[in-house]
Amino acid sequence: MKAIGADGAFKLEDGNYFYEFDKEKPTPKNRELLVKIKAISVNPVDTKIRQTEPSEAPRVLGFDAVGIVEAMGDEVELFNLGDEVYYSGSPEYPGSNETFQLVDERVVARKPSNLSYNEAASLPLTALTASETLFDVFKISDKPEENKTKTLLIINGSGGVGSIATQIAKGYGLNVITTASREETKEWSYQMGADLVLDHNNDLAEEFRQHELNEVDYTFCTFNSDMYYETMIELTKVRGTIATIVAFNDKQDLNLLKSKSITLTHEYMYSRLIHQAEDIIQHHRYLTDVTEKVERGLYQPTVNEVLDGLSAENLYTAHQKLESNQMIGKLVINLESEED
Amino acid sequence: MKAIGADGAFKLEDGNYFYEFDKEKPTPKNRELLVKIKAISVNPVDTKIRQTEPSEAPRVLGFDAVGIVEAMGDEVELFNLGDEVYYSGSPEYPGSNETFQLVDERVVARKPSNLSYNEAASLPLTALTASETLFDVFKISDKPEENKTKTLLIINGSGGVGSIATQIAKGYGLNVITTASREETKEWSYQMGADLVLDHNNDLAEEFRQHELNEVDYTFCTFNSDMYYETMIELTKVRGTIATIVAFNDKQDLNLLKSKSITLTHEYMYSRLIHQAEDIIQHHRYLTDVTEKVERGLYQPTVNEVLDGLSAENLYTAHQKLESNQMIGKLVINLESEED
Repeated sequence: MKAIGADGAFKLEDGNYFYEFDKEKPTPKNRELLVKIKAISVNPVDTKIRQTEPSEAPRVLGFDAVGIVEAMGDEVELFNLGDEVYYSGSPEYPGSNETFQLVDERVVARKPSNLSYNEAASLPLTALTASETLFDVFKISDKPEENKTKTLLIINGSGGVGSIATQIAKGYGLNVITTASREETKEWSYQMGADLVLDHNNDLAEEFRQHELNEVDYTFCTFNSDMYYETMIELTKVRGTIATIVAFNDKQDLNLLKSKSITLTHEYMYSRLIHQAEDIIQHHRYLTDVTEKVERGLYQPTVNEVLDGLSAENLYTAHQKLESNQMIGKLVINLESEED
Repeated sequence: MKAIGADGAFKLEDGNYFYEFDKEKPTPKNRELLVKIKAISVNPVDTKIRQTEPSEAPRVLGFDAVGIVEAMGDEVELFNLGDEVYYSGSPEYPGSNETFQLVDERVVARKPSNLSYNEAASLPLTALTASETLFDVFKISDKPEENKTKTLLIINGSGGVGSIATQIAKGYGLNVITTASREETKEWSYQMGADLVLDHNNDLAEEFRQHELNEVDYTFCTFNSDMYYETMIELTKVRGTIATIVAFNDKQDLNLLKSKSITLTHEYMYSRLIHQAEDIIQHHRYLTDVTEKVERGLYQPTVNEVLDGLSAENLYTAHQKLESNQMIGKLVINLESEED
């Protein structure tokens, strides 16, 4: 089987150190599935891990994947051979930039039957990040009518996570305000269901005043935690919650949270996996809920660009596009033309 | 009526700048009660506010009070004249270091009928801080059987807040580990219901290993947030929650929260009041629940020392004792010998 890897950390401006190599097709055991991959998507976290030293070489990056169950361990309960599935895997396994991959069934769900492989590949990592943020961090109700009076602010609504977080939040009854700057990103965010898109080139507190908006219940930062730290506290209600998925560059003053007793979480969708939480199966449940909502036409895929074929060149191009910070929605690489 | 105030910020080593003065008895309006005070307790927050410049002079400090409803505004719904009540008030009103005080009925509850004034005075501020932390921050269930598998770590279990937080947490079914250092504080914390008291003179992570303890669901810091920041993250479970009520002296690295997606709240029990939250009445509800539990014998008062009479001298002595950081439970000043 084929895989794309790299032997060390590298920056894109130093050249393309990804290369293709052969590896032996692994054998699934216990609750593992072996999946023949049909499409993958590339996420910002891939570009960050690429710049860290691997513990063994070559390292295969990639989380999101869609494919067909080709073999399974003897404790698998949730799937059958031939099932079409999607998932965003785990840092504990080699990544999805390969033609066959092992994955623990507890983080996998059935692929939405009304989506293409490319469309389905755009969803798992971002949908799981958004689901954990909404349900585990903000603890929103699973009854949409109970969320009608609640408002969520998403800093950067048009990226991968912002795009699906907007849809899930709307699906569960929240009011959603997002931010964007360019005309095309504003339009995209409205397409994802945002009730109002503010311009993050302007001061957000001033934008709130101009639109006569009250402080929000929940604030979700998907872009530059340092820049927005004080603003998020200002725009969040007393006893409200802030979540970020973006690492800080600077230390911050936690006393600023005190006056409004604000809660802050650094959300990380692999925390359950790397710390072997008892409820890892929550990923299967969240993703299954996404599948159901997609099949009912409530959520739409967020793919915006597709590259054809798993190659070192395509992977390098994908990383370049993600590091440009200009991405709208998700970038997918299709593997349907790959040989077995 | 009599009040104790000070005209400016002062440190105890510069002398006693508290003084007694006469003021006119105020008239309650809307939802206000005028309470004839029978006992007050002194809290660490009083010593901190004393060291800040007042916006007007003389400033009357104090939050906790127990007394009798002497007059009421025309919108009062929850109380009658002559009711015995207790509360920890609001920074929006003059404090409780006086013989009559105005208070909004939404933060007041009926005094437990089986407690003396001194005993009741020990509870409101600490019980409200503990209740907000347990229910609003940790979001524990109000059904004790649903909390049986959850564990709370309280850094400094023998202080005012730690003492009542231990009791409420036990009352609602949690397992409670506390920390203390001296023999008498350890014994006190066990009396409050702690399942295990660790020695915070030792490294707490090492104490956890020696007692073969797992990471906890919730960590509550009532002493030195900077010193315990990294340790609390280490000892808290993936997707667990940390609350502190102690201001930080240093900025902190929020990226340390990421690996376990840990949530952190800077709890402040006056945030609802100073930001005029819609659910200020939650204080009435929390305190009413404490009254019921005390009357059923489930919680005990935390008073450990009583000074007799509202005087500048007694208040200065109380502030000295609190600033020694040696307090066990609560210090109360009794006003029953005061004239009308």
